Amino acid sequence: MIESARCVVLCGGVGAARFLSGLVRVVDPARVTAIVNVADDEEFHGLHVSPDLDTVLYTLAGLVDGTRGWGLLGDTDAVQRALARLGRDTWFQLGDRDLATHIHRTALLREGRTLSEVTAALARAFGVTVRLLPSSDDPQATKVRADDGWLDFQEWFVRRATRDAAREIRFEGDARPAPGVLDAIAAADVIVVAPSNPFVSIGPVLAVAGVREAIERAPAPVVAVSPIVGGEALKGPAAAMLASLGYEVSALGVARIYRGLVDAFVIDDRDAALAPHIDVLGMRVTVAPTIMRDAAAKESLARTVLSAAEGARAAT
Amino acid sequence: MIESARCVVLCGGVGAARFLSGLVRVVDPARVTAIVNVADDEEFHGLHVSPDLDTVLYTLAGLVDGTRGWGLLGDTDAVQRALARLGRDTWFQLGDRDLATHIHRTALLREGRTLSEVTAALARAFGVTVRLLPSSDDPQATKVRADDGWLDFQEWFVRRATRDAAREIRFEGDARPAPGVLDAIAAADVIVVAPSNPFVSIGPVLAVAGVREAIERAPAPVVAVSPIVGGEALKGPAAAMLASLGYEVSALGVARIYRGLVDAFVIDDRDAALAPHIDVLGMRVTVAPTIMRDAAAKESLARTVLSAAEGARAAT
Repeated sequence: MIESARCVVLCGGVGAARFLSGLVRVVDPARVTAIVNVADDEEFHGLHVSPDLDTVLYTLAGLVDGTRGWGLLGDTDAVQRALARLGRDTWFQLGDRDLATHIHRTALLREGRTLSEVTAALARAFGVTVRLLPSSDDPQATKVRADDGWLDFQEWFVRRATRDAAREIRFEGDARPAPGVLDAIAAADVIVVAPSNPFVSIGPVLAVAGVREAIERAPAPVVAVSPIVGGEALKGPAAAMLASLGYEVSALGVARIYRGLVDAFVIDDRDAALAPHIDVLGMRVTVAPTIMRDAAAKESLARTVLSAAEGARAAT
Repeated sequence: MIESARCVVLCGGVGAARFLSGLVRVVDPARVTAIVNVADDEEFHGLHVSPDLDTVLYTLAGLVDGTRGWGLLGDTDAVQRALARLGRDTWFQLGDRDLATHIHRTALLREGRTLSEVTAALARAFGVTVRLLPSSDDPQATKVRADDGWLDFQEWFVRRATRDAAREIRFEGDARPAPGVLDAIAAADVIVVAPSNPFVSIGPVLAVAGVREAIERAPAPVVAVSPIVGGEALKGPAAAMLASLGYEVSALGVARIYRGLVDAFVIDDRDAALAPHIDVLGMRVTVAPTIMRDAAAKESLARTVLSAAEGARAAT
């Protein structure tokens, strides 16, 4: 019964959110657990911003600005413009309604609630029934080494607009898994690695203490979707990072990163020629359309992933 | 030289802000120090809101919503509406641009800046040259005893809309004067008690450790403007509070509160009959138009106050 499969999805931001929005058309949303990267979280103006959690939240709520892939559709920027007039740095865009999320989150955190609790409250308020879990309630921070030194992730990603070649990535903070993360992985029927950046989205989730081991131990098949199609990232700096970090800029390069963790790998039709090379890494390869250009394509990719999981399960 | 008089004005919110906007048309704004009540300050959504400081700031910047007397003219409420959808209490109205002030203030306070420093930074950002001083950098909180118990000030004032008779007022916190407060009082040529609520606006300023004594010791004449005209408060609950706290609801009732502190008292033309009763309290009375309906009336009241100070000085 595909509809009742307990799906765990390791998530970054835009690509994962789009994948989830297709997945919930195929399986019961209440049986989907999204484990979302928090190493991009940052304080702006004293407010705790969780970019990946919010992208997933807004997308599943049907409120995301689909063109950008993040932020709320039709949001205004009165506060941001006023903050700029007060002399504050406003290179990280925060819309007015989006700010309400950050204000609410920060207020609850300061009252002593955990990020998990706050995330669950936000999901309820937005009517999202997918279980949204931050990968950790502890601070975890992605740092990127550029040629002129280590940068905070958002400084590298947004302020400098990924112009600097990433030479090295590290995650600060001894992050423990948030409540429910390990249990969800252990109980899953399918574990999906979303088409997110392997270095700065999936990497930090796997770096949370015990998560990688829990996935390796879990009985469920692990299916990854390549975020690289035809040698390019559909969104964000994944292609440039593969190059600057010494990997082949292709779905094969990504597959090599996930070697040993992933049982099945979904690549795009136009990368079909890579299939034999990925196959020898010990992954079952599915070749299918992976570009989520509309609702039908998202749903189709979800079905592809679920059948790839079925195939991997049958093979073991 | 009236233009170069060093004026210190003890301030609450709307009435004080209007008075200051007239005063700066008569004297050099850079020689005016506003010592502003902070006992109304409250955290909303984890943000530090200073209602009286902001009313004075916005008014002197020419940006206030003149109809309400507070908040920014033409401000929007996108954040507030989004906070309400998240289930937050939004009985205290916070406009979008106004929120930027609170976000900025809160961020600076959390970085370790004092309220004085933050207030000076805000004044600079808004182009306000009047020296704005919070009465204290320490927390001070006005509490109001209603028939069903003690209430936080904003709960009594805004949430319950002053429907409860105030039976008693107290100020919590051992507030010490902010840097510059006592020096400004000592160096003043004129000390003005603005037409603000004597109980909950001027009262807490006088309750800051050493402020009342500094005023009593200061060589400058102290001039108060009655916030009660014809037995009614022009704004806010002052009249109802005089009644519920056992005072005569008139300029005379206010004068009795300020007895021993104030040298000269300015009352409105329509209260001329009260002059002899105030005179016997040891105050020189000036009878003049006091309703600040337009810029000319504000300027005229400022001139009235400055001449009342001259008169009081000449008499000593």
